[in-house]
Amino acid sequence: MTKSARFNAIYGICGDKKAAAKYAEEICFEQTVEFPDVLIPNDFIRDNVVGRVESLKKIGRVYEAVISYPVAVAASELTQFINVIFGNISLKPEIRLNRLDLLDNLLRVFKGPRYGCKGLRKLLKVASRPLLCTALKPLGLKSSELAERAYQFALGGIDIIKDDHGLTDQPYANFGDRIKMCAEAVSMANRKTGFKCIYVANITAPVSQLKQRALIAKSHGAGALMIAPGITGFDAMRELAEDHDVALPFFSHPSFQGSFVVSPESGISHYVIFGQLPRLAGADAVIFPNYGGRFSFSRQDCADIIGGCRVKMGHIRDIFPCPGGGMSLERIPNMAKFYRSDVIYLIGGALFAQGKNLVDNCRYFSRLVCKYNKISIPSR
Amino acid sequence: MTKSARFNAIYGICGDKKAAAKYAEEICFEQTVEFPDVLIPNDFIRDNVVGRVESLKKIGRVYEAVISYPVAVAASELTQFINVIFGNISLKPEIRLNRLDLLDNLLRVFKGPRYGCKGLRKLLKVASRPLLCTALKPLGLKSSELAERAYQFALGGIDIIKDDHGLTDQPYANFGDRIKMCAEAVSMANRKTGFKCIYVANITAPVSQLKQRALIAKSHGAGALMIAPGITGFDAMRELAEDHDVALPFFSHPSFQGSFVVSPESGISHYVIFGQLPRLAGADAVIFPNYGGRFSFSRQDCADIIGGCRVKMGHIRDIFPCPGGGMSLERIPNMAKFYRSDVIYLIGGALFAQGKNLVDNCRYFSRLVCKYNKISIPSR
Repeated sequence: MTKSARFNAIYGICGDKKAAAKYAEEICFEQTVEFPDVLIPNDFIRDNVVGRVESLKKIGRVYEAVISYPVAVAASELTQFINVIFGNISLKPEIRLNRLDLLDNLLRVFKGPRYGCKGLRKLLKVASRPLLCTALKPLGLKSSELAERAYQFALGGIDIIKDDHGLTDQPYANFGDRIKMCAEAVSMANRKTGFKCIYVANITAPVSQLKQRALIAKSHGAGALMIAPGITGFDAMRELAEDHDVALPFFSHPSFQGSFVVSPESGISHYVIFGQLPRLAGADAVIFPNYGGRFSFSRQDCADIIGGCRVKMGHIRDIFPCPGGGMSLERIPNMAKFYRSDVIYLIGGALFAQGKNLVDNCRYFSRLVCKYNKISIPSR
Repeated sequence: MTKSARFNAIYGICGDKKAAAKYAEEICFEQTVEFPDVLIPNDFIRDNVVGRVESLKKIGRVYEAVISYPVAVAASELTQFINVIFGNISLKPEIRLNRLDLLDNLLRVFKGPRYGCKGLRKLLKVASRPLLCTALKPLGLKSSELAERAYQFALGGIDIIKDDHGLTDQPYANFGDRIKMCAEAVSMANRKTGFKCIYVANITAPVSQLKQRALIAKSHGAGALMIAPGITGFDAMRELAEDHDVALPFFSHPSFQGSFVVSPESGISHYVIFGQLPRLAGADAVIFPNYGGRFSFSRQDCADIIGGCRVKMGHIRDIFPCPGGGMSLERIPNMAKFYRSDVIYLIGGALFAQGKNLVDNCRYFSRLVCKYNKISIPSR
């Protein structure tokens, strides 16, 4: 057995011990050589290319297999790394990718989040309290109307105002106008409040326009960018996040990624798809549906996301979990206990439902978060 | 009700009629405004932005909802189109995207496959018989060894020789060398046989290298390109397929797309994810695991893929289904009845297992296909 550098992927496999052991062996071949053992032409390939089952243990109802792959197989590419850990076996039910256990031999390929939790706090000048986020909506408003809402949110003490992820470049509010007017509105409010609220522009777009939109957003004063890596691919986010011309924080949106997690036995764990992978791809915060909202994530799913956002991964920074998805203000006491302070609260529609005055609603949101986190309310 | 141009997406929804009707209504809002009806500020948005349930019918065990969306919401972007049809609701179990019903008002945005079935047949000079395809493997061989295999495959009468999708830019056989040597080997064999075998280079790669790899492959003589849109995003394939500098046929590989189809109640149908979407994104052939192979697709799943590859979609060309995934030569009689002539047979490992002489094995493959499709064997 050679000592080629390897990394581990940990899978949950259904079935009895014998079936799970067979399945684990199959993963080793399927994800690398796609060739039966008997046809492998030499031992170099067997030792340096094929995956290896390092352990197989019953954990709860499934068997957990630790499988190691040679680092060289991943070719220093996020795309091929994703292909190795879950490419073809995504097509097989009853295998779930649970965790990645990565060392510097692989991590050095990735820069990871440029800001991470600490960097984002520094940028926003918020030392330790939870951050407040809301979304510009609905799609269909004119740019000036969205900008007016952004202004009121910022005035009310929201830290992060993001585009709804469906706002791209529609005729109602085209990309350039929307970004310019919303960023200016937030900036104007900041001058009034003395706060450092940022506007997060959604740049999810056709590949050829991604960098262009990132730079337009930056030039207009957007403070961060949002992208849906389920649609653009994780690598498109990584590339922009690592780009020194862009150099803004990135928010990862879960659109089109849900199918990885809707089955508890198949797909990819919340820990990996909303934690470890977005970090490798340079996200500074990851948006996901909170437990008890209008989606179906459980408390445990959300705890797993927090885990994936924070687990030690060499030089790759910790990132913010950003739970949203139909949260009401009544949920804040419960969320405060669960998420503590390193969290971005994303409250969208509920901020409108609270009362007619958006600024007052935002201030109420802020007071609630401060109260249940036992911190004093930021002065304005 | 206004007459804004709309397109239809058809979803299967679990539950009783009342629950399904409620779910269908929720989809209309979730996929567009992400805002409750009562908070929508005006009727323009209600009529021109929000989705609309056109019908709800029980089909088998589920309710099928036809939901129409305004074309403008999709912003003439494949990325936003994907977001509208299944972005956020991917996060909800028990909704499945079954079909897309698209008119020229939306289809005109997309060029679709450059070649399609007819174009690929013309390129390969094969009028009507099924096409024969195999894969270069295993990962870990040197470029010269892969090229030697490619030569023998081409000599044996294979029409299409594709890279295994795990071959990207590993140290064993880096991208440039592999492409050059394999393309030359195929070209050399063609000069000997008089056939028009093509080498399909896998260009799945980090976003910034995609076009570069496409052009390198073309310059070395690759006859087509393969990409895994589950990893790169569908739009990356679309962009390259529509690029006049590239102008080669595209093979879509299913890596990392399996989670969309592993649950029968959730995700996206085989018809859409391996048929309609790759066509919109410019694929000329779509690779998928055949029924009865080492994956879990059923005959019906494969029939659905054929349907999605061929359904009338305006000017968007028909494409080839390319079933593979652990097919043995013994399956050919059965497959011949099922797929008829407009199919690309992808046989990988089994071509090696048949006997020691690869050229003979390929000829045997060719004879079998011809025999069970009742056609004469191509002369050599």
